[in-house]
Formats: sequence, C-alpha cells, structure tokens
Amino acid sequence: MATAKRAPAGAAVLRTDITVAIRDAVMYELAEVGYGRLSIEAVARRAGVGKTAIYRRWSNKLEMVLEIVSDVAGRSVPLPDTGSFAGDLQLIMMIVSRALQHRIASQIIPDLMAEAARNPQIAETLQTALRTHQQAVGEKLVGQAVARGELPADTDPDVAVDLILGPLYWRLAVSRSKPDPEYLEKLMTAVTAALRHS
Amino acid sequence: MATAKRAPAGAAVLRTDITVAIRDAVMYELAEVGYGRLSIEAVARRAGVGKTAIYRRWSNKLEMVLEIVSDVAGRSVPLPDTGSFAGDLQLIMMIVSRALQHRIASQIIPDLMAEAARNPQIAETLQTALRTHQQAVGEKLVGQAVARGELPADTDPDVAVDLILGPLYWRLAVSRSKPDPEYLEKLMTAVTAALRHS
Repeated sequence: MATAKRAPAGAAVLRTDITVAIRDAVMYELAEVGYGRLSIEAVARRAGVGKTAIYRRWSNKLEMVLEIVSDVAGRSVPLPDTGSFAGDLQLIMMIVSRALQHRIASQIIPDLMAEAARNPQIAETLQTALRTHQQAVGEKLVGQAVARGELPADTDPDVAVDLILGPLYWRLAVSRSKPDPEYLEKLMTAVTAALRHS
Repeated sequence: MATAKRAPAGAAVLRTDITVAIRDAVMYELAEVGYGRLSIEAVARRAGVGKTAIYRRWSNKLEMVLEIVSDVAGRSVPLPDTGSFAGDLQLIMMIVSRALQHRIASQIIPDLMAEAARNPQIAETLQTALRTHQQAVGEKLVGQAVARGELPADTDPDVAVDLILGPLYWRLAVSRSKPDPEYLEKLMTAVTAALRHS
C-alpha cells in the first residue's frame, strides 16, 4: 500500500488515486447532506480535485452517484462455510448488524430510497444491487444447509434472507433500537425454527 | 362531513380546516421534494394560506414536520380480534403491506430517516412514534394468541412484530420486490413456525 502510494506518478496510478478520493468524497457528502443537496463543487473541493476531473469520469451527478453507490453496495460479503447452519447464521447476522450500523446503510440507503421514489433510474440501480447481493447470500447460506441435511431441500432462499435481513434492518435502520445479544439469540432461534418447520 | 364544511364560518371550524389543508400540503411536499428541500413558502402556496397561518401554529419547519408526521405515523391501526392467530396474522400482514405501499412509508419515512441520521430531534420523534405503535400491535397480537393457547406464554412480542414487519418492510420499501400471494403465504407459515417452535 505505502509502496503503491510512493510509486512514480504514472498516469494509471494517479488516475486510480483520484477516483478513490472522489469516491470517498461522494460517500462523505451523501452521508452529510444527502443526494438532493450534494453538489459536484463540494465533492471536488473535498476530494482535492478540479471539477473537470469529475466530469472526465461521469457526465452528471446522477451517473456519478449511481456508479459509486452500486459499486460499494454490490461488493460481495465474504461468506465462509463455518460447517453448520447455526454457525453460518450467526456469522451472517453479525456481518449484517455491523454493515447496518455503517453510514452507508443508516444514512445513504434511506436517502437514496427517498430519491428512488422520485427517480426510477436510482430505484432500479439500487434495487438491482441489493437483490443480486441478497440472492447470492441466500443461495449460499441455504444451499450449504440443504447439502448438510440441516434444512429441507425446498427451503426458499429469498424467504430465508428476508427473515434475517428484514428484522435486523427494521431494528437497526428504521426503529433504531439496538438489538442486544439476547435479542439476536432469540431471532436466531426463531429464524432456525421458521426454516426447519415450514 | 359536508355539513361541517358548510357550517357558518366559526373561528374554530376555520382553524381546523386550515390545519388540515396545511397538514395535507406538508405530506404532499415531503413526498414530492423531501424534507431538505421542503419550504414553508411551497407549503403555504399548496395549502392556499398565507405564511403567517403556518407561523401562528409552528415556529419553524422542523417543528411543523415533526408534529404532523408523528401524528400521522402514530395513528393506531385498528386491530380486531379475528378469533385465531392465523387470522390475526393474515390481517396484520395485509394492513402492513398496504401501509408500506402508501407514500408515507415509501417516500416520507426513508427521507426522514436520512434526515434523522443528521438530526437527533427528528430521530427521536420518529423512533418513539414507530416503537409505541409496534409495541401496541405486538402486545395485542401475541397477547390474544397466548390467551387462546396458540402461542407459548413467553413469546416475545417485539421479536414477533420484527419477524412480520421486517421482511415486509425490507421487500416493499427497500429492495422493492412486490411480495406475491405465494410469498405472503410462505412468510406467514415461517413466522408461525418461528413463534411456535422457539
């Protein structure tokens, strides 16, 4: 990392550094003022670049925000096989809880959701990123459990993920009552029972 | 209703009509432009009143929005006793699905949530309204089922409501994939199994 930053200023390296700086600035501004009040000027100022550096990459604010957010939201969560459904479930709930306390989930997603209701292009990009992500997690989690004989073969991966993500999202991002370990334990038991007995 | 509107223009009647017009205008503007871009001028114009009519009621935009939204969000859902947990659950899921497709849930709540992350007063008002509401629903739903012997006495009403609200909110308001009747059926079975067997 340090080496890369100190490397001779080849054009490719510089361009990457600038893109990272702009991406960080966009995420910061989105969290701080929201999409509606975000300006290219403020992003350029925070990233320490000229406005032309931004317009060279994206033709407008919408395009810039969509590409950056869907890139961040779509990064795949590393979901290792812990060897048991209980272990996998516990790990996913931990990862999701932590992710939902990050400002991307607590500020940027609600803000873009509100914008999405007014702008179909934002809606589609955001939903495609979320759904693709959710499907991958669901198929891996349920697939592993079915292969181990822990869940019925006809378990619906979508319902499974909704039962995990939904309550955590509702609690952490909407009603904002922090789930304590006892709550997480109860939720885990409930989700396991739901998938085994339905 | 018609009689009330045609009643002699007593001050009290007029004041109520104006408050209703302002409230409707605020909800409309919130859905249309969001909290950040909402202006007292636009609300007054849409409500057909002068700005003084607004400032006579609330000292600023934040106070006005908070009072109106928490009033609307806090209105109690009529939750009748259908005679069985399955019936109650089906009814609640129907009410919640419909409510989440209303613009209050799909536009105004996400927008205020994004603002809430920047403004603790909005956060507290919104969360108190949501939690009070959720608690009342949970206690009634679970209380009735326990009294009928359909659920264990130690069923946690909060977990129960999170399992119903969470997946529906996630699906309808966040990932925006419309739940079809088959999905609702699966979710109902899963939630019932979760509460009976955990």
